[in-house]
Amino acid sequence: MTDLGYVGLGVMGGGVVRRLLDAGHMVTVWNRTREKADPLLAAGARWADSPREVAERSEITFTMVTNTAAVKAVVEGPEGILAGLEPGKVYVDMSTASPANTRELAERVAEAGADMLDAPVSGSVITLEQGKLTIMVGGDAGVFERVKPVLEAIGPRVFHLGPSSAAVTMKIAINLSLAVQMLAFSEGVLLAEKSGIPREKAVEVMLASVIASPMVAYRGPFVLEQPEEAWFDCHMMQKDLNLALELGRELEVPLPTTAVTNELLTAANGMGMGGRDFAVLFDVLAAMSGVNTEPLT
Amino acid sequence: MTDLGYVGLGVMGGGVVRRLLDAGHMVTVWNRTREKADPLLAAGARWADSPREVAERSEITFTMVTNTAAVKAVVEGPEGILAGLEPGKVYVDMSTASPANTRELAERVAEAGADMLDAPVSGSVITLEQGKLTIMVGGDAGVFERVKPVLEAIGPRVFHLGPSSAAVTMKIAINLSLAVQMLAFSEGVLLAEKSGIPREKAVEVMLASVIASPMVAYRGPFVLEQPEEAWFDCHMMQKDLNLALELGRELEVPLPTTAVTNELLTAANGMGMGGRDFAVLFDVLAAMSGVNTEPLT
Amino acid sequence: MTDLGYVGLGVMGGGVVRRLLDAGHMVTVWNRTREKADPLLAAGARWADSPREVAERSEITFTMVTNTAAVKAVVEGPEGILAGLEPGKVYVDMSTASPANTRELAERVAEAGADMLDAPVSGSVITLEQGKLTIMVGGDAGVFERVKPVLEAIGPRVFHLGPSSAAVTMKIAINLSLAVQMLAFSEGVLLAEKSGIPREKAVEVMLASVIASPMVAYRGPFVLEQPEEAWFDCHMMQKDLNLALELGRELEVPLPTTAVTNELLTAANGMGMGGRDFAVLFDVLAAMSGVNTEPLT
Amino acid sequence: MTDLGYVGLGVMGGGVVRRLLDAGHMVTVWNRTREKADPLLAAGARWADSPREVAERSEITFTMVTNTAAVKAVVEGPEGILAGLEPGKVYVDMSTASPANTRELAERVAEAGADMLDAPVSGSVITLEQGKLTIMVGGDAGVFERVKPVLEAIGPRVFHLGPSSAAVTMKIAINLSLAVQMLAFSEGVLLAEKSGIPREKAVEVMLASVIASPMVAYRGPFVLEQPEEAWFDCHMMQKDLNLALELGRELEVPLPTTAVTNELLTAANGMGMGGRDFAVLFDVLAAMSGVNTEPLT
Repeated sequence: MTDLGYVGLGVMGGGVVRRLLDAGHMVTVWNRTREKADPLLAAGARWADSPREVAERSEITFTMVTNTAAVKAVVEGPEGILAGLEPGKVYVDMSTASPANTRELAERVAEAGADMLDAPVSGSVITLEQGKLTIMVGGDAGVFERVKPVLEAIGPRVFHLGPSSAAVTMKIAINLSLAVQMLAFSEGVLLAEKSGIPREKAVEVMLASVIASPMVAYRGPFVLEQPEEAWFDCHMMQKDLNLALELGRELEVPLPTTAVTNELLTAANGMGMGGRDFAVLFDVLAAMSGVNTEPLT
Repeated sequence: MTDLGYVGLGVMGGGVVRRLLDAGHMVTVWNRTREKADPLLAAGARWADSPREVAERSEITFTMVTNTAAVKAVVEGPEGILAGLEPGKVYVDMSTASPANTRELAERVAEAGADMLDAPVSGSVITLEQGKLTIMVGGDAGVFERVKPVLEAIGPRVFHLGPSSAAVTMKIAINLSLAVQMLAFSEGVLLAEKSGIPREKAVEVMLASVIASPMVAYRGPFVLEQPEEAWFDCHMMQKDLNLALELGRELEVPLPTTAVTNELLTAANGMGMGGRDFAVLFDVLAAMSGVNTEPLT
Repeated sequence: MTDLGYVGLGVMGGGVVRRLLDAGHMVTVWNRTREKADPLLAAGARWADSPREVAERSEITFTMVTNTAAVKAVVEGPEGILAGLEPGKVYVDMSTASPANTRELAERVAEAGADMLDAPVSGSVITLEQGKLTIMVGGDAGVFERVKPVLEAIGPRVFHLGPSSAAVTMKIAINLSLAVQMLAFSEGVLLAEKSGIPREKAVEVMLASVIASPMVAYRGPFVLEQPEEAWFDCHMMQKDLNLALELGRELEVPLPTTAVTNELLTAANGMGMGGRDFAVLFDVLAAMSGVNTEPLT
Repeated sequence: MTDLGYVGLGVMGGGVVRRLLDAGHMVTVWNRTREKADPLLAAGARWADSPREVAERSEITFTMVTNTAAVKAVVEGPEGILAGLEPGKVYVDMSTASPANTRELAERVAEAGADMLDAPVSGSVITLEQGKLTIMVGGDAGVFERVKPVLEAIGPRVFHLGPSSAAVTMKIAINLSLAVQMLAFSEGVLLAEKSGIPREKAVEVMLASVIASPMVAYRGPFVLEQPEEAWFDCHMMQKDLNLALELGRELEVPLPTTAVTNELLTAANGMGMGGRDFAVLFDVLAAMSGVNTEPLT
């Protein structure tokens, strides 16, 4: 068993810690708002007063936070993770952040004698609970081998993709399809609905068809009733598409469906739905075609 | 067991007839080029000299042909199916054709005292062989109940969606996602590849992720080696998107991802790849980003 | 002076007839609703009771009607223009209609021993009144030379573009830019406005800039106050974009900006603004960004 | 007459200095590569050894450089313009740079007791030579009035648009239409060409039509023969579209035509044409439709 540290206890981060505890690991945690840690502390996790302290107490320290800025906030500064690292330790960032920032952080971690991996996941908290999560890993292959058993306790499928930032890049490359698939699905549901097929029926049939990716399977029904709490809101989804579009310009890859979908996310924001799950792309398109959707609460 | 008729013995139609024979039905067949019928005749099917004759000999006559014009060609005229229908018989069109044409044909079939259903499928020949095909049905509910047992021998999932043309409309609404998902997938693969991740690895990881619809799962690997024979070529795919876009204008549903993807299919045609499987959307995008793909044979 | 005939007395058609009368020609007219002819009759035009009668009385018969179906309605049948043509006469269609239909009509006109030209215009009624209209002509070069002096009385710039349908094709190729330029202009105005620049000021500066085409110059101010009566409504504009998109697929030319703009026109229709001038593309985009526009009357 | 300073002597900057000299002003200049200054020095301008020295010698110092980074490079540091400013002096940035950076610089200039205006232009070097340039100005109204006479010597049309960064924002809002109009124009030319109309003829007619903005008028003929030297290359054009797209996300304005056009600029870069004038959007589209263009030299 290993001494692990975990910074960032959102819905996903919390679920990961729970699986690590279930696997018998010691886990020291820190979160910006402490109350989110309470159920985990009750389940055996230990609290630390700063990200630095988490790193000091752990062989492997994980982070899973919202965006590039949030990663910097918990890594840098006198109370940050970097200050608590030392030779032999590993820092694993599970966030989806800018690949350029990942490479820069990895260099600074190396200067401290430690190692960094980027290890974003593909899947939602549901996928995690079903034990079907995929974890992609970027960084040194030897370090990957050391950390791999711990990662396998989180999700069974663990891929080493290449050097530092390869995994966040892969994550971004996957995530653009989340929004595009959702919008294309919405186009189809609205076509069916306006032709006279009940929305419920259209969703049922589409979920039984060859286009039903796991994402479409769990998010598709949201067009019948949008969830009160977003799993992944429009601002978050747009953040990922922006990372993809920046990367596309840098690597000179045109991304036509991503670019168009991103503008519809902007419309969601402009229409006041930016805090809703990105499945509200359906509501944006419905508004554009004069179809009423339930008033979002 | 029922006397069935089948007109249109392409890869998919042939596969369907084989399942009907396996289920113990008598099947009379006709195809524009007779040699495609040979293996089916060897397996017990019977040949008829015209679509009309098929209809005369069968309680239920099926068609599965390329497009609206091909449907008309086998239904109309002195040797067409309509000429062979009579009260009590059912004509089932499994093609993806124009909803307006479907409704018009259904009226003419009704004038002949018979009934028509539209019954397109979701899935490929692989899905069919795996026994996982979905069949959507439009038309009278009572007629649907009569035909349902036969349809269940083809694919286990059979949905009645509403009156005439509801099913082809649903099919079109689903199929727009085929092309859009393929293009978004290609955007992701190229981003990964140009960032340094081998294409094979990128595909493997994406197929293990939440965006892996059954369509992505079987067509995704085509970006590694495009198939010599198209399962569904760009011209066919564009035909379906055109039907969707026409319907979108008629029903006033904006279809942004469909519209953009359709222009890339036009590019595939313009670049001489129109006869290839629509997975060559990847090659189009690769050409636009200066990435070499294997020369298509 | 020539005996001329004119069928289709909309705002544009009426303006053209007035210029022909001013140039000293005899003009026989017909329109589906007769009252539109009254001011022209008062100015010296003569009424005929059918398109056929117009053609019988005229050396050159013009049409300028809404779309392909309207062209057919006045050309075909016992009371149509075709029935009134004879060797030596010329039929000139100034409508924007399907190129394929134009070529088919030209053949039927030739069978009657007469000649047909397609001669759509570029410009609005304002351009016409300013004497700046451009007329594009498709058809036989010799026939073009015969008709040219009459066309020059309408607009000073007359171009012979090639055989039958070359001019309507050119018109379609130009018109796609109308909608795209309007939407791009709207994107810019909204960016400026949401950054704090008053909408009036933004429009003023854009109209003084290098992007101010004549179209932008006269339609741009519509974003300040949409006109009660459409010069060219969304349905008309979409008809032209559909012709462009069909041609693009046939000729294998991808039309990315046209395709995207067309979906926003569909949104205008879906949001109940289809009968407004296509400058309401601004209002569609404003709604998508949460900006209030004056309620359209 | 005023002591003026000018930093950045590209094609446009050089032309502006020439007009200032013609108007009788004293102009001190600096440029990263000195040889570009030679003809101006011959015409009466004076050389300074650093941007700081330019500012020290001038009442009003202008910059016109490539992008946000280049602005920072000449403004900041011990040899930068900021170091040479003092109370009463004015710094005028004519570059197209990030609005956020403009506001930040304006604050630092104010801390030095001086004033800053952003004053980008609309138009090319041709427009400048024709004496038709438009200058947009952001910043304090009183300072604007002081500088206005000098600006009027450059271009006759000078607009005060609001506080700091209002003018660069307006410039970005205009410039997105440059690329979109060029792409829509290219779509039309290719449609015409593939239908059989010679490319030259298509361009001629479009330049006589209502879509011929000044930009289309001077850049349209580039599709007949792309210029060896770019007036404004794809990288520069994409920089402006990126600024627009960032602003759109920040202000929640969807920019559908801008987004799609930007991906085609990425394709231009990916296909190795990034250093060409952005009129090569035509060549990108031509490649996508299988049309040969002259090999770019």
